[in-house]
Amino acid sequence: MAPLTPAAGTTPRPCTIADALDLLGERWALLVVRELFWGNHRFADIARHTGAPRDVLSARLRRLVDAGVIEKRRYSERPPRDAYHLTQAGRDLAPVLAALTQWSRQHLPTDERRPNVPHHDHEIDPVVEVRCRTCGERVA
Amino acid sequence: MAPLTPAAGTTPRPCTIADALDLLGERWALLVVRELFWGNHRFADIARHTGAPRDVLSARLRRLVDAGVIEKRRYSERPPRDAYHLTQAGRDLAPVLAALTQWSRQHLPTDERRPNVPHHDHEIDPVVEVRCRTCGERVA
Repeated sequence: MAPLTPAAGTTPRPCTIADALDLLGERWALLVVRELFWGNHRFADIARHTGAPRDVLSARLRRLVDAGVIEKRRYSERPPRDAYHLTQAGRDLAPVLAALTQWSRQHLPTDERRPNVPHHDHEIDPVVEVRCRTCGERVA
Repeated sequence: MAPLTPAAGTTPRPCTIADALDLLGERWALLVVRELFWGNHRFADIARHTGAPRDVLSARLRRLVDAGVIEKRRYSERPPRDAYHLTQAGRDLAPVLAALTQWSRQHLPTDERRPNVPHHDHEIDPVVEVRCRTCGERVA
C-alpha cells in the first residue's frame, strides 16, 4: 500500500507504519476500536461516546469491516440491527491504544478526569515496553 | 481537550486516547515523527520521505512545534534555515510507532519490503508488551 495522496515529486518511504496509518490514521477509526474495547457495540452507542458524525462513522465502520479489524453480528431480525465486534486483528490494536494512553498521560496533562477501561478492581494504567525481537534488547 | 468536531447530541467520552489523537490523529503527524527517528531533520527530506504535500507538512510541523513534540533548530543563518528535532515528548512516541509497526507486520501482509530503523547490525523488529502499572499484570 502506498500513501493515499503522496505529493508530486516525492518518494514516500515503504513503511509498516504508513501502511497502518492508511487504515487507522485519523481519530475516528481508533476511537471506534477504543469504544469496542469499552464494550459498546451498537451504532448509536459508538456514535454517542466517540462524538463522530453519523455519516463519517458509517464510512469508518464499513472500512474497518472490509479490512477485517471489526465484524458485524446481527442482534435483531425485526427490525434488522447489527452490532460491531473486534476481530483478532482488532483486539491486537490494544498495544497501540495503550501506547497512546501512556503518552497522553505523560505529556498532555489535563485537569479533568480521564477514566480508562476496568481491570480487576481498578482501571488499566498502561506501561508499554518495547523489545527488539532479533536481539531481545529493550528499546528505549 | 474535547474532540475537535463532536456531532450534535453526542457526549464524547473524556479519554487520554482522544486527547492524543486530537494532536496526532492523522497520518502526516506520525509520519513526521517517524521520519525524525530515521534521522531526517530538514523540511525537504521530510517532505520527500513522507509524501506529504508541502502546505500540509508546514501546518503539521507548526502544530507539533506548538505542542512541544518537536523543536526547530537553526542550521544556517544565510539563508535562514531550520531543522526539526524530536523533544523528549517526541521521543516518547517511539512505543506508539513500535505498536503500529508490530500490528502492521502481523495484520497487513505485503509482498514488498518494509525496512525499519537500524539497531546494532540489524533492523528493529518490535515486540510490544503492555503491563498494568497498578497490579503489574501483563495485559493481553
